[in-house]
Amino acid sequence: MNNFQFHFPTQLRIGEGERKQLGKIAAEYGKKAFLAFDPFLNGSTVQKEMLEDLSQNGVAYEIFSDIVPNPRNTSIDQGAELCRNTGCELVIAVGGGSAIDTAKAIALTAALGGSCWDYTERQGEYVKRPDRPGLPLIAIPTTAGTGTEATQFAVINNPEQVRKCTIITPLIYPCVSLIDPELMQSIPGQLTALTGIDTFAHAFEAYICKGHNEFSDALALHAMELFAKSIRTAVHDGSNLEARGMMAMSCTLAGAAFSHAGVCLPHAMGQPLSAFTDAPHGGTLAACIPQVIEWTIPYAEERLARVAEILDADAVAGKTQAEKAAALPEIIGQLYDDLNVHVSFSGYGLKEDDLDAFVDLCFTAYKQDMDQHPKPVTRQDVYDLVRKCMNTEEG
Amino acid sequence: MNNFQFHFPTQLRIGEGERKQLGKIAAEYGKKAFLAFDPFLNGSTVQKEMLEDLSQNGVAYEIFSDIVPNPRNTSIDQGAELCRNTGCELVIAVGGGSAIDTAKAIALTAALGGSCWDYTERQGEYVKRPDRPGLPLIAIPTTAGTGTEATQFAVINNPEQVRKCTIITPLIYPCVSLIDPELMQSIPGQLTALTGIDTFAHAFEAYICKGHNEFSDALALHAMELFAKSIRTAVHDGSNLEARGMMAMSCTLAGAAFSHAGVCLPHAMGQPLSAFTDAPHGGTLAACIPQVIEWTIPYAEERLARVAEILDADAVAGKTQAEKAAALPEIIGQLYDDLNVHVSFSGYGLKEDDLDAFVDLCFTAYKQDMDQHPKPVTRQDVYDLVRKCMNTEEG
Repeated sequence: MNNFQFHFPTQLRIGEGERKQLGKIAAEYGKKAFLAFDPFLNGSTVQKEMLEDLSQNGVAYEIFSDIVPNPRNTSIDQGAELCRNTGCELVIAVGGGSAIDTAKAIALTAALGGSCWDYTERQGEYVKRPDRPGLPLIAIPTTAGTGTEATQFAVINNPEQVRKCTIITPLIYPCVSLIDPELMQSIPGQLTALTGIDTFAHAFEAYICKGHNEFSDALALHAMELFAKSIRTAVHDGSNLEARGMMAMSCTLAGAAFSHAGVCLPHAMGQPLSAFTDAPHGGTLAACIPQVIEWTIPYAEERLARVAEILDADAVAGKTQAEKAAALPEIIGQLYDDLNVHVSFSGYGLKEDDLDAFVDLCFTAYKQDMDQHPKPVTRQDVYDLVRKCMNTEEG
Repeated sequence: MNNFQFHFPTQLRIGEGERKQLGKIAAEYGKKAFLAFDPFLNGSTVQKEMLEDLSQNGVAYEIFSDIVPNPRNTSIDQGAELCRNTGCELVIAVGGGSAIDTAKAIALTAALGGSCWDYTERQGEYVKRPDRPGLPLIAIPTTAGTGTEATQFAVINNPEQVRKCTIITPLIYPCVSLIDPELMQSIPGQLTALTGIDTFAHAFEAYICKGHNEFSDALALHAMELFAKSIRTAVHDGSNLEARGMMAMSCTLAGAAFSHAGVCLPHAMGQPLSAFTDAPHGGTLAACIPQVIEWTIPYAEERLARVAEILDADAVAGKTQAEKAAALPEIIGQLYDDLNVHVSFSGYGLKEDDLDAFVDLCFTAYKQDMDQHPKPVTRQDVYDLVRKCMNTEEG
């Protein structure tokens, strides 16, 4: 047994209507809040109610809406400066993963100074390690996908350097995350499917990667179980609060799991595709997971068999462990069909001519995730896998 | 879906040799430590090494060894006074559940004043709710049983009132728990079995009780899985570090599960038996779990079937859900045989003449656990169940 640490300090409040606790909770942390609102919420009833709730609880606020997919270091630094200059004492994020990651980085940078990029993990460069927490952060996710409401990560995009890097520190966990499935009811089916696959990928990769431990396993296994029970309903009947609630919990459990265990090859291939083509994160993962599994099987047979059982117990009933593991790519393929997910690396704009540069990027920027994979990964392996992921477009 | 909160702030460090981090970690919290050492450690190499480690890290200490099974309010109050008077800045507990519960209550009472009994939950009486944390606490368990290294509870015995009551507050979680299976290697087989059944009971009751949620389920299910994999080896080959490690993690996972979900009827019957006869906690649970399950089945069939699968997948392969649930008492009976656990309420000294008073005690002191049970519980039900638990002695 390898020694490990488990520390998950975020206080979770989970259930329908929990967003309405915001004002009361915010008032415990300060008198002025920096609000990172996902722009899609601007002018919405949800936003209006939250602002009223804050005011009624004596919390003033500064709204920041410069939030984009794959959050940029420059916007974050501007946000941090605004946060400092306006005397905000806490940060509140409402939105998808980008809004929450932006807010996490702002909360840290506003308190510690410098640029957010200084705190990211960059191989071979000097990294400033935070030595104290940032401003207190309250996170309210509106999608069930990234799990960032429960991780020690904030992913930051540096367009000038064509790199996405991550701040990794337990000091960046939100103090409180309010997980309210009512906020997720209006997410369209396709976005629900792709963010849901992101959630599955976090749990799945945390479960099979080398960094897993019995605590991350507990969370990852249950996250996959909730995903299997609810993703189809969440995609095809978005107003179903039970399914939305299960997916929301799956997402948070998966977040806490991979925050401790890490991720492996699918993220090491999917993340750079987003940097290369601005493809949606969940879609890039969907486009490589079955191929990665097929290539990995003998190195993680027992765990892949268990995942197959969780996703479709009937399909593998009575089979041997090897047969169960072998059935997993097809089980996932069937799931994609059910969710109308038909994606490929070429569909997201990767060209044959890009392959060398793309594989280089995987290896320079995501080496640590490669190293976590249960099967050793060579450059040729990734090259061959990426080629397989080019040719699977069906829709 | 019922709304719920999940907050588990304890930092866990898990693995062989983690106890050796004590001095370094303690130094982060203060210059003088109050040491609640389980008396069985007095003069041991483990104790000697820990004291040296503390000294080398510049941490002075005050040793307190007035620790007994079912810790008493009077000893705790004396400890709290000693802790205050000697200027200790942190509390360290090394030992079984009694040592850690004693230390939790001392850390709180030393900082907040008054008597520890004031802070216990007592139906119909004024309870002082802690409004700030106690002294920082580092817990190092030496058994895999109570899970108190991962709970918001400290159980206190008040012999004068013939009552055991519990302090319940998230402010009482240890700051850090060091879970080191090497410390558990020398625990004798029978104690390993009974403390192991306590661990199982925490996970099992958290899983079936009304207060369960998807986070406590994740932890409880995995705790039961680790228990099923390792308890026989831990009991019969105590030096096996892999099995000890799995049981240690099972215990901590189960602790975090029931800290959030609560427990139900087995604890409501077992706890008062310890108050009545000083019987070991794990033994009292073992003596009633199969009977409680048999009586409960139709009210929790799906969950009981799942537990049966976890404990003995082969025994229930191909059976219906109802058949799986029905098989659970026998599966547990087989486990008891394998562990040489043969206990009963009469074996622990409960007499026919005590039955009325005993059932009264269950209902006055453990009503909240009764109310958590998936099947409604009447006084007559408990009376009948206790009678069944009287007559099962085999060894």
